[in-house]
Amino acid sequence: MRVLGVDPGLTRCGLGMVEGRAGREVRALAVDVVRTPPDDEVAARLAAIADAVEAWIAEHRPDVVAVERVFSQHNVRSVIGTAQAGGVVALVAARAGLPVFFHTPSEVKAAVTGSGRADKAQVTAMVTRILALDTPPRPADAADALALAVCHCWRAPMMARMAAAEARAAELTRVHAAKVAAAGRTARRLPRV
Amino acid sequence: MRVLGVDPGLTRCGLGMVEGRAGREVRALAVDVVRTPPDDEVAARLAAIADAVEAWIAEHRPDVVAVERVFSQHNVRSVIGTAQAGGVVALVAARAGLPVFFHTPSEVKAAVTGSGRADKAQVTAMVTRILALDTPPRPADAADALALAVCHCWRAPMMARMAAAEARAAELTRVHAAKVAAAGRTARRLPRV
Repeated sequence: MRVLGVDPGLTRCGLGMVEGRAGREVRALAVDVVRTPPDDEVAARLAAIADAVEAWIAEHRPDVVAVERVFSQHNVRSVIGTAQAGGVVALVAARAGLPVFFHTPSEVKAAVTGSGRADKAQVTAMVTRILALDTPPRPADAADALALAVCHCWRAPMMARMAAAEARAAELTRVHAAKVAAAGRTARRLPRV
Repeated sequence: MRVLGVDPGLTRCGLGMVEGRAGREVRALAVDVVRTPPDDEVAARLAAIADAVEAWIAEHRPDVVAVERVFSQHNVRSVIGTAQAGGVVALVAARAGLPVFFHTPSEVKAAVTGSGRADKAQVTAMVTRILALDTPPRPADAADALALAVCHCWRAPMMARMAAAEARAAELTRVHAAKVAAAGRTARRLPRV
């Protein structure tokens, strides 16, 4: 499974391609950071990001796109820019027919470092080690994009199992409700005592 | 000037087309609200919004797109969804070659009601009056989209004058700096006393 991890942002948008193989084996295929000038119009910056993501999808042919889920603990302006960029990335992926998954920063950190509260240096160090890279990916947005892709490779089987379990539970509930309804109908057909 | 006003949102995205004429005369051409099911994937919802805005641009041929600038006083989840939807609308507009302008909710309210703190009912009432509509646009997102378009029609000339004044000021600063530099060079050529 080839995963395009995206750490969305207007000023720097990290892109990382990772291939997940049998077990927990993962391999980095490409990494880059798209930069757009803060003085440009927001719409033009979003278009530049969309163009870059489209080019990456065409070149690297991912099976799925994993995007960082935005939280608002950061400052307001950057959250809004991040959400705008993330929305554009999700749109481009959807239009390319690719499934999009969102992972929170703490899910990503926990996946690669074991702690949901790891700092940037720790994430970069672990991404470098897990993917056996010669040099640590820079800037942090590049490392974060790879971490997101690795996180998706490792969480995807669990997410699939959970979805299957939920579907099974819903089916059991449906069958049970049908049995109760049938029992009720039978009871109504019995003569009152 | 034909303005497409957009009140972005994942659940309800208001679209309003307004034609600005000489003076403050404005006319409503179309209004609609795009709805996407909350249970759908975010990427699919964004794609539905993008499709609708593209269809509107193709049908109504606006000269400019005015989008509500997101603020974070509201609740976190809705701000992020709103920013994602707004980003997608800005992208679609940029790719259609249209300029995109953002106006804050208080700029919009002030433009149509005279007060930046007007409530939704007041905005709807004034939009109905200004555009001489037979019935108030419903839901509020539809009225807000029309209000945004009206706001842009009325603010655009002032924004253009301000941009021209800023460009003029920058040019004067440049000329002055060049004169100072030239005077410096002349001074250095004079014999020291």
